[in-house]
Amino acid sequence: MSILQVYTGDGKGKTTAALGAALRASGHGWKVFLLQFMKGSPDYGELKAAALLPNLEIVQKGLPTFVERGNPSEEDCRLAAEGFALAREAISNGKYRMVILDEANVAMEYGLLDVKEVVEMLLGRPNDVEVILTGRGAPPEIVEIADTVTRMEEIKHHYQRGIPAREGIEY
Amino acid sequence: MSILQVYTGDGKGKTTAALGAALRASGHGWKVFLLQFMKGSPDYGELKAAALLPNLEIVQKGLPTFVERGNPSEEDCRLAAEGFALAREAISNGKYRMVILDEANVAMEYGLLDVKEVVEMLLGRPNDVEVILTGRGAPPEIVEIADTVTRMEEIKHHYQRGIPAREGIEY
Repeated sequence: MSILQVYTGDGKGKTTAALGAALRASGHGWKVFLLQFMKGSPDYGELKAAALLPNLEIVQKGLPTFVERGNPSEEDCRLAAEGFALAREAISNGKYRMVILDEANVAMEYGLLDVKEVVEMLLGRPNDVEVILTGRGAPPEIVEIADTVTRMEEIKHHYQRGIPAREGIEY
Repeated sequence: MSILQVYTGDGKGKTTAALGAALRASGHGWKVFLLQFMKGSPDYGELKAAALLPNLEIVQKGLPTFVERGNPSEEDCRLAAEGFALAREAISNGKYRMVILDEANVAMEYGLLDVKEVVEMLLGRPNDVEVILTGRGAPPEIVEIADTVTRMEEIKHHYQRGIPAREGIEY
């Protein structure tokens, strides 16, 4: 039976937990596909590490710049649609045991992905494919169909002390 | 400046997030030392994956069986003490840029580690070593000195539906 996991909330560690899940699963010999929506930067540590893990494939479908909420660019929309097509393919083609849709929750909230289409894809997933969605603001429709939902709550954050995002920690 | 991160709470994803942090940091070429307290099983996916990552070293200092709360065995205590000595060494010897003490919070709660000694070690850490502690029930003394604290809250869990822990997901 396939499990659908969701990591949401405002706290740190959602994408990071998905990366850990990918590391663990790939250690067991599972093929893992990780699609990062709304992200596009070759500097991400996960991309460099994934190059060493034969079972882990990471694809970014986003621009290096932030998406403007309520006003995504055509390019943002095009990339998200491409990402969704890749995700659908990865979930259904029998090649992967785990598919991670990083920032999918945010992409839905920003209107880059259609919640109904995502729900339909998830409900139709094969029984032997685990799926993980990350991103703050998971839509209720997603929480409803998920098996495991963890909310990351920020108790304290070093940003509050003026320490900026840093290589090796945030990306 | 060194950042001390804590992943705590009852929800899923604490160790998993630490593994993701290790993956990301190792991709940036950082040497990472991950000490797992209260765990001892060669079947963990993270151990198998870490073997492929030259920058990531994982050591387990625990028995494969659960520690009895309020009544740890001599062997539990001995292994935790060994783990603490290794952690102290890894934090101070200049070899690692990131040191992860997995389940350290639980080990403190169970009396396997002394909170004061852990706090002292953390406060004395070099400026260029990032430290991450995981485990439910982070002691207030640890939260106090941490830079970033994320609480994983369980909104839903597939255990509730009778699905047991499974390879590739929980370990």
